[in-house]
Amino acid sequence: MKRRQFLQGAGVGLAAAAVASPAIAQSAPTVRWRLATSFPKNLDTLYGACEMFSKAVAELSDQKFLIQVFGPGEIVPAFQVFDAVSNNTVEMGNSGSYYYIGKDLAFAFGTAVPFGLNTRQMNAWLVYGGGTDLLNELYGKYNVYGLSFGNTTAQMGGWFRKEIKTVEDLKGLKFRCGGMAGQVLAKLGVVPQQIPPADIYPALEKGTIDAAEWIGPYDDEKLGFVKIAPYYYYPGWWEGSANGHLFISTSKWAELPKPYQQMVRIAAAQVAADLISKYDVGNAPAIKRLVVAGAQLRPFSLEIMDAAYTATNELFTEVAGKNPMFKKLYDSMVAFRNEQYQWHQVCEATYDNYMIRQRNRA
Amino acid sequence: MKRRQFLQGAGVGLAAAAVASPAIAQSAPTVRWRLATSFPKNLDTLYGACEMFSKAVAELSDQKFLIQVFGPGEIVPAFQVFDAVSNNTVEMGNSGSYYYIGKDLAFAFGTAVPFGLNTRQMNAWLVYGGGTDLLNELYGKYNVYGLSFGNTTAQMGGWFRKEIKTVEDLKGLKFRCGGMAGQVLAKLGVVPQQIPPADIYPALEKGTIDAAEWIGPYDDEKLGFVKIAPYYYYPGWWEGSANGHLFISTSKWAELPKPYQQMVRIAAAQVAADLISKYDVGNAPAIKRLVVAGAQLRPFSLEIMDAAYTATNELFTEVAGKNPMFKKLYDSMVAFRNEQYQWHQVCEATYDNYMIRQRNRA
Repeated sequence: MKRRQFLQGAGVGLAAAAVASPAIAQSAPTVRWRLATSFPKNLDTLYGACEMFSKAVAELSDQKFLIQVFGPGEIVPAFQVFDAVSNNTVEMGNSGSYYYIGKDLAFAFGTAVPFGLNTRQMNAWLVYGGGTDLLNELYGKYNVYGLSFGNTTAQMGGWFRKEIKTVEDLKGLKFRCGGMAGQVLAKLGVVPQQIPPADIYPALEKGTIDAAEWIGPYDDEKLGFVKIAPYYYYPGWWEGSANGHLFISTSKWAELPKPYQQMVRIAAAQVAADLISKYDVGNAPAIKRLVVAGAQLRPFSLEIMDAAYTATNELFTEVAGKNPMFKKLYDSMVAFRNEQYQWHQVCEATYDNYMIRQRNRA
Repeated sequence: MKRRQFLQGAGVGLAAAAVASPAIAQSAPTVRWRLATSFPKNLDTLYGACEMFSKAVAELSDQKFLIQVFGPGEIVPAFQVFDAVSNNTVEMGNSGSYYYIGKDLAFAFGTAVPFGLNTRQMNAWLVYGGGTDLLNELYGKYNVYGLSFGNTTAQMGGWFRKEIKTVEDLKGLKFRCGGMAGQVLAKLGVVPQQIPPADIYPALEKGTIDAAEWIGPYDDEKLGFVKIAPYYYYPGWWEGSANGHLFISTSKWAELPKPYQQMVRIAAAQVAADLISKYDVGNAPAIKRLVVAGAQLRPFSLEIMDAAYTATNELFTEVAGKNPMFKKLYDSMVAFRNEQYQWHQVCEATYDNYMIRQRNRA
């Protein structure tokens, strides 16, 4: 071997040794977690977000932090996801905070309240308006740490068998709806119904209920409501946006290496942003297909909107008077909403309304 | 030593050995990159996003992938960031795609075009509407891979020394503006000016220019325009949203380990989402302060909006006829915009407009 060849060989050897030098394995242990979601596999939006999150964390960690997703009923029923996280049955769960208003009405603010924040306002309130901290004050009482996990965007007002023009038309109406909407609508004479997604269609078909709201065009289309309740009302004033949550056991969270915590935080935020785009891209063509299939689009009348607005303010003032955690969240959300809409109306709304006007002229 | 103590000791030893077993170091090499941004340090919004991104990647990689941020002029001038990435002077850069319309007018679609997409539509078009792929077809010709890196949200129309009511009032107006707005406004008689941020205020003060647009209330407030050009117009119809980009050298990108690529992608998406919230939270109180400081809010008249809309369509049709890449992006964006606004007007706009109405009643 010539001296030059020897030296080149030695050089390669040194470089290889440097590359293979052991990293501190403590920083990248293999971790396996289970994620239970409230949303069924046929919702590629909400269930899809869990799969996307799991994949992102696996890729970020070079397949060392593996999170397996379980649908409703596989480990716990849909509406027990929060409890399963709280008692460490699973390390994490995906659900709507407002499914747990039975524990405390303050849970509603994690998802949506009537006449609450729109999608961008909700994001901003959670991250920079104190929303996430206040909600975690609430969830923390249950050994749970919550991260925002996307938004359905403004929801539709649901499918009605008959036209609803006045508050009088709401009297005695059996209406399937989520969150605190039922309590507001009850003040207007509605008989609110809590029915899991799979049972809504048969209930509406048989006439057990008169109307039902679910999410928006893209998800609603799959349930086939247009065939039996064609009046499709808007906007869903009880869900001007609806935020999903990733719930994590605080004790399990504390055991995670810092880089893995960061992977969860950042992947959740990325999935959250992505879900909004997925809804926008899904809803726009879906509403056109629904109209072709016979959906009759109807705005709620101003009479109904105003009555609901007044009933909401009355109900929320009552609850806030008795529930300090609810009051904290309510005061924070309302102050944020009012300031945001003052700005929104100047630039965003003027731009959007002009663009809508031009589109309709064309 | 008793037998039990010995066994316990041995157990601890085994556990410790398992924890310290060498990981494959190739999967986590130390990598140092440089990021040059077009935006100065005093913009905690845009410059801040670069710092947030760098911190996120460092945390995700357990301090192994380190990205140092450089302001304009530190490595290259503000408007040469794309070129610095293209020729591998830096591995990555943050800039506005539309600063490079001198190379090809198609670059405008990466940031904003007159009467283009709003913020949510832009996000959705980039990720699910083919926008990112089309833009990367363009950037790829320059050895650059682009990722969306946040949005300023709808921008204001700028600061004017005098009221502008008619198209006639625009004739001969020396107006500092960005992107393709200048070419549209030139059709209406404006004399567009390209002036770097730091020089805008003195130019406006001396009367070298008559008006200037920058971003929105939060960023504009820092430049002090309210003192010398109090008529604050809206909306900035040439920037219904304005998207920033992270530009990455395609050759450097190919060298990155897969998990590091994933860290860049996901951290960029998270920063992008965060920036929108930061603007919403910053702009809302800033516009109130500006009004207190003397800003006179004025909407552009319908006459001006309509003339600009017509001029935009004429210009874009002309350019699309000569530039196939521009045409591909334009056709994609317009089809997406029209479908999105059709859906937007049903639910989102109805909800927002009702909320604005209620706020103004209170």
